[in-house]
Amino acid sequence: MEFSEHIKTANVEDVVLRQPLHPPGRGALCITGHHLLFSDREDQSGSQVLLLLRNIDAIEKSVENLLGYSSLFSFADHGEKRSGSSGTITIKCKDLRVLQIDIPSMEQCLNIAHSIETLSNLDSVPEMYPFFYRPSDQSCESQWGLSTPEQFFRETKGLTSLWRLSTVNRDYSVCPSYPPSVIVPKCIDDGTLKKVAKFRQGGRFPVLCYYHQKNGMVIMRSSQPLIGANRKRCGEDERLLQAVIGSSDKGYIIDTRSSQQSQQARMTGGGFEPKSCYSSWRRLHRHMEKGKTLQESLIKLVEACGDESHNMDRWLSKLENSKWLSHVQTALSTAGLVAECVERDGHSVLVHGSEGSDSSLLISTLSQLIMDPSCRTLEGFLCLLEREWVQAGHSFQQRCAHSAHSHARLQQESPVFLLLLDCVWQLWRQFPLALGFSEALLWKLATEAYASNYGTFLCNNEKERYVLGVKEKTFCLFRALLRPMDREVYSNPLYEPTDLAIWPSVHPQSLQLWRGFFLRWTPHSRHLEEAQEEIRNMIIEWGKLSPSR
Amino acid sequence: MEFSEHIKTANVEDVVLRQPLHPPGRGALCITGHHLLFSDREDQSGSQVLLLLRNIDAIEKSVENLLGYSSLFSFADHGEKRSGSSGTITIKCKDLRVLQIDIPSMEQCLNIAHSIETLSNLDSVPEMYPFFYRPSDQSCESQWGLSTPEQFFRETKGLTSLWRLSTVNRDYSVCPSYPPSVIVPKCIDDGTLKKVAKFRQGGRFPVLCYYHQKNGMVIMRSSQPLIGANRKRCGEDERLLQAVIGSSDKGYIIDTRSSQQSQQARMTGGGFEPKSCYSSWRRLHRHMEKGKTLQESLIKLVEACGDESHNMDRWLSKLENSKWLSHVQTALSTAGLVAECVERDGHSVLVHGSEGSDSSLLISTLSQLIMDPSCRTLEGFLCLLEREWVQAGHSFQQRCAHSAHSHARLQQESPVFLLLLDCVWQLWRQFPLALGFSEALLWKLATEAYASNYGTFLCNNEKERYVLGVKEKTFCLFRALLRPMDREVYSNPLYEPTDLAIWPSVHPQSLQLWRGFFLRWTPHSRHLEEAQEEIRNMIIEWGKLSPSR
Repeated sequence: MEFSEHIKTANVEDVVLRQPLHPPGRGALCITGHHLLFSDREDQSGSQVLLLLRNIDAIEKSVENLLGYSSLFSFADHGEKRSGSSGTITIKCKDLRVLQIDIPSMEQCLNIAHSIETLSNLDSVPEMYPFFYRPSDQSCESQWGLSTPEQFFRETKGLTSLWRLSTVNRDYSVCPSYPPSVIVPKCIDDGTLKKVAKFRQGGRFPVLCYYHQKNGMVIMRSSQPLIGANRKRCGEDERLLQAVIGSSDKGYIIDTRSSQQSQQARMTGGGFEPKSCYSSWRRLHRHMEKGKTLQESLIKLVEACGDESHNMDRWLSKLENSKWLSHVQTALSTAGLVAECVERDGHSVLVHGSEGSDSSLLISTLSQLIMDPSCRTLEGFLCLLEREWVQAGHSFQQRCAHSAHSHARLQQESPVFLLLLDCVWQLWRQFPLALGFSEALLWKLATEAYASNYGTFLCNNEKERYVLGVKEKTFCLFRALLRPMDREVYSNPLYEPTDLAIWPSVHPQSLQLWRGFFLRWTPHSRHLEEAQEEIRNMIIEWGKLSPSR
Repeated sequence: MEFSEHIKTANVEDVVLRQPLHPPGRGALCITGHHLLFSDREDQSGSQVLLLLRNIDAIEKSVENLLGYSSLFSFADHGEKRSGSSGTITIKCKDLRVLQIDIPSMEQCLNIAHSIETLSNLDSVPEMYPFFYRPSDQSCESQWGLSTPEQFFRETKGLTSLWRLSTVNRDYSVCPSYPPSVIVPKCIDDGTLKKVAKFRQGGRFPVLCYYHQKNGMVIMRSSQPLIGANRKRCGEDERLLQAVIGSSDKGYIIDTRSSQQSQQARMTGGGFEPKSCYSSWRRLHRHMEKGKTLQESLIKLVEACGDESHNMDRWLSKLENSKWLSHVQTALSTAGLVAECVERDGHSVLVHGSEGSDSSLLISTLSQLIMDPSCRTLEGFLCLLEREWVQAGHSFQQRCAHSAHSHARLQQESPVFLLLLDCVWQLWRQFPLALGFSEALLWKLATEAYASNYGTFLCNNEKERYVLGVKEKTFCLFRALLRPMDREVYSNPLYEPTDLAIWPSVHPQSLQLWRGFFLRWTPHSRHLEEAQEEIRNMIIEWGKLSPSR
């Protein structure tokens, strides 16, 4: 496909751009296959705005005719070209920015709008910008990704005695959403794994994702067992989970659905591990919202944040009504429960819901951050995300296809990864010294997951990335974030490593709206952000002077 | 009166004390005329808890008989002395702490409770602790208070040309709630002031509280004019306000009541400045809650903060329902309006509601903080509080007689000063570099206003302080806060003075619950406070190393 066929008007002069936190600018607008470029003609410093079209979540068009009346109209009006009118395009970005472009000619306005709508919604991965992006600094070219399952296996001390690296999935045939290598109990052979995979939704058989050095306990994750209405059993699955327990007395299954939901799942072929067949495992249910419910929660929250009514009661009521903070609370308290099982009580844990690629990853990631100091450095945290989200098969392409502004055509969208980042921010706020990365990293990741120059968040799993050659043809975000200049921005100058677990408070009174992200484009946040930046710089400068650091 | 007649049991052994953020302790309890003292017998470090009885807002007693049933009972049960029972006293402090004391003998429990109830509610000012307190460090003995109206008049540049210091109130006969000297227009003589005082509620005639150096505009404050149902006029009052305007075109009256309320006030003899008689003044109404409504708001907020249901929706709903943040928003936006009139539009302002000693002081204080850099240092802020609250006649004794826990006998209580401190905290949070004092200062002031070793917040006005010899017989809190050791604690290590006005955002999304105060006794706030203390110390240490600071 040629991008040019979607671009009827590539350049428009005399356009006015309104964007948050800046005065309006007048200049030239240019649309390319992947970008919207605005060059300010009046600003002497030649400032530009370069926006990835992929970052655009939704647009609204309005025309103003010569009488000065303004009207919103749908795309169906395209045919009617009123001369003598100008138009305005409101651009709502996935990073929650809202821009406005006034275009002097209505025809040009409609052409531009059409190009944006089409090009921002392209589904074909190889046409996306990461396949075209060539950074001027080539230092991240050396290697794609930070670590592999093999490296993780080698570097995790104590793992080799009872666990092994299986390559049963080397051609992605056993589980398309798993990486080629996974860690399983040593005594379970590949033949058994293949049988277990058939008994778990999407082939996601139980694999190790965390080994707790202090007591040898582990966190496993999987999808739901396919017991169905007839309570089907799978001896291999039971044996695998028994092997996880080993000689210890029992383990915990944390099911991220309510007890009722997991019962109902049997009607569609899914289900849970019955006590009778998995006697060493105790099942606990913690209902976590996902999918559409979570997406709607985000939409409501963002709508509330944009409310300009100046009414305190209305704001608090909308915030409550969005339920977003309830989801944050549930995620953190479920992760705390897992960490309690492993760290305090000394039991292994299996986490799953139905598919095992959303809430399960959220919980396993957060509980590792709570327990494991090595996940809390900048590099350690990025490795954790790579392992638990990219390699573990979170469907970024589906889940992050749209953000909070696009009400239409929502199908598989769900802000699970954003919810993770919010929970990490809550940890970061509650333990300002314990995490090695900055809030800016969390903003950055929240933006990049939706639209990026890099290939890291492309596709839904490693198989798709392999088929499309993502690792050969794109650059890796995580590598880029570790370049010296970036490392300074994304590090926490106050970081003081601690070996202790960091137990988050999940009292409703302790959890706060992540203002830095959800309100970052509102003017009233700006001077605060500037002040915090100044504090940060002071601390960095002073830190350099101090001999003890 | 002898305190001892209220103390039937002065000492009890084998008492268990439960207090927030500490493990329970076992030891001896002692009640004196002003204190509750607990000495931990098990703690090797000999830790003690010394609590001012004045800090106790309410107590609850419960007895546990030998069968283990626990029952709350009222004080009327006093006569019935069940032997073989033990008792528990729950102590709810004005600083929002909640303590529990288990006492082995029920009779002793009832005696202790009776002493606490009586001694914590003594009304007689000369019997209060500040009259007995003798600090070991006598350095604050030299002078009582930081500044006088005379000093303020002398030190405010530009003031002497059009304004004068009047001592018409030197014997407090013109206005019992004003200090002996006040600043008024030069052309208005004392005879006129006396007549104006008769036309203003409580004699609070318009006086200058702020002179804006940049343009010579001023903030005046007063109480409401007594126009009554017959629309009485007072030529002297009209002349005084005309003199304030001088040659400029107009001034603004910010009435802290709704238009309807100020109309209704005429029925009880009060009212507002009618346009026809004060043609140079434009009246704006900004309805601010005070009195009982504000008190109930605080009670609801504190109740919400203590809710342990772990339910996010319920918490947000209770927070909204308390309306506390709405009051914060209204206060900050009204103060912003005053500052806009003075700084941006170049007009003088008169602020009043009905009595002129609550909301008016809140607004005049906040607008000075917004506009005037000299109020933003530690010393400048304390001077501002001394001028606008202590000398200006805020009824601390009535308003702060009880805090959020005492539901009974509430009469004149109202947390206006606490609302001020919350608003200042919002400014402090939005402008982390612009204020020279620390959050700890705001906590300290919020506590001291309700119960203190110092005489600063005793009585309702300067006349009462004079009559009781407060300034001769007690020590001054503000002086104590400026001693070198205290100064370090109460200063902001990041302070970078700015000459600009600091305009607070009053978007509901920008205002936050003052967690540091309202949730400071909850365990989940503690590690956060510790971390912030550590950050503070790092910054102080690094600041000392940096040659540029």
